Amino acid sequence: MKKTYLNSSDIDHLDKQKRVHLINSLGGFKSVSLIGTKSDANTSNLAVFSSIFHLGANPSLIALIFRPSPPERDTFRNILATGFYTINHINEAIYQQAHQTSARYDSDISEFDAVGLTPEYKNNFQAPFVKESHIQLGIEFREKIDITINNTAMVIGEIVQLYVPEDCLYEDGFIDIERANTITCSGLDSYHTTKRLDRLSYAKPNKEITSILSIE
Amino acid sequence: MKKTYLNSSDIDHLDKQKRVHLINSLGGFKSVSLIGTKSDANTSNLAVFSSIFHLGANPSLIALIFRPSPPERDTFRNILATGFYTINHINEAIYQQAHQTSARYDSDISEFDAVGLTPEYKNNFQAPFVKESHIQLGIEFREKIDITINNTAMVIGEIVQLYVPEDCLYEDGFIDIERANTITCSGLDSYHTTKRLDRLSYAKPNKEITSILSIE
Repeated sequence: MKKTYLNSSDIDHLDKQKRVHLINSLGGFKSVSLIGTKSDANTSNLAVFSSIFHLGANPSLIALIFRPSPPERDTFRNILATGFYTINHINEAIYQQAHQTSARYDSDISEFDAVGLTPEYKNNFQAPFVKESHIQLGIEFREKIDITINNTAMVIGEIVQLYVPEDCLYEDGFIDIERANTITCSGLDSYHTTKRLDRLSYAKPNKEITSILSIE
Repeated sequence: MKKTYLNSSDIDHLDKQKRVHLINSLGGFKSVSLIGTKSDANTSNLAVFSSIFHLGANPSLIALIFRPSPPERDTFRNILATGFYTINHINEAIYQQAHQTSARYDSDISEFDAVGLTPEYKNNFQAPFVKESHIQLGIEFREKIDITINNTAMVIGEIVQLYVPEDCLYEDGFIDIERANTITCSGLDSYHTTKRLDRLSYAKPNKEITSILSIE
């Protein structure tokens, strides 16, 4: 396989938009989810994010990165103002609507209405879930960390509510997100379904790893 | 679709290992890559990570999360001591070997040897790439941010070298990581190939999104 080689200088000389596509592709496949919030003025907001990642299981923390502002982001402002947000996995049936939420709608417009997804309020959670999403998380804001090197911000939240299809939750705690039709993305705009290769046993030196699919 | 509902209290009462599996599954599909380093004593080290994420394109930054220490991690120590590391995408042919690097080998053992992958040194880069990997990144350490809320650390690096199959690099800068056989993972131990749904056009209010696969 013949490879193209680029060094820092080659990367620095790329056209800006080309560079954005390139670097965004390099991190590998990403989580892609819809974040639901509500403004102080009670307008619901929905936005697609591919910068969400697991931070730790105890406490149950999940984080996401916000790009440099301005422009000010409704999602960012609503999270800081209200302290609550939802993270909703995206499935094949709604990925085009999810992508459309990245358009710059005015703050007084609900992306739920604009793209045709349904806000769902339940169990006294303050922020709207996406009814069409199969895996829904209710998150309580915990901490914002400013990342000065490139003027981004990491927002950390704790998972306080969780909704998952009952046939996707396994005995050992693993959630089969592929079975729940959760998709993944790469780069800025590429969406992908998945096909499981295997689940592998806990690795130890000098011990053969085995498939643990049978425990499902 | 019938959903199981869990709140904070339900999550808190889960068995520890079950909780780890559950929370690790919730962030969605993850990037999974091999990080190559070299110790001061010149031992090469290789470890699988699913906590790598894109931080920004200008400068070209990529970040990863290290879990609480102790135990001290060879990868973490080597990055801080030498300032250089590689990130190597994992493909279907090497995912079992990649998983095996998570076993706790002694510091004087090279995981390259232990699992049967080949260290590759090129273009004067100080850390070893994985020869069997199709997309390889050479990273220079930039910054460590301590995340006190759960005693983790974020390590930020800049992409200074990049090797990508020439037929996977598109005109607009997008890298077709699926075509490069890059895989994704979910939870602690589940590995998946992908199948592209589409690439979608830049979203604007009141404008239909379209497929941009034709520009490839």
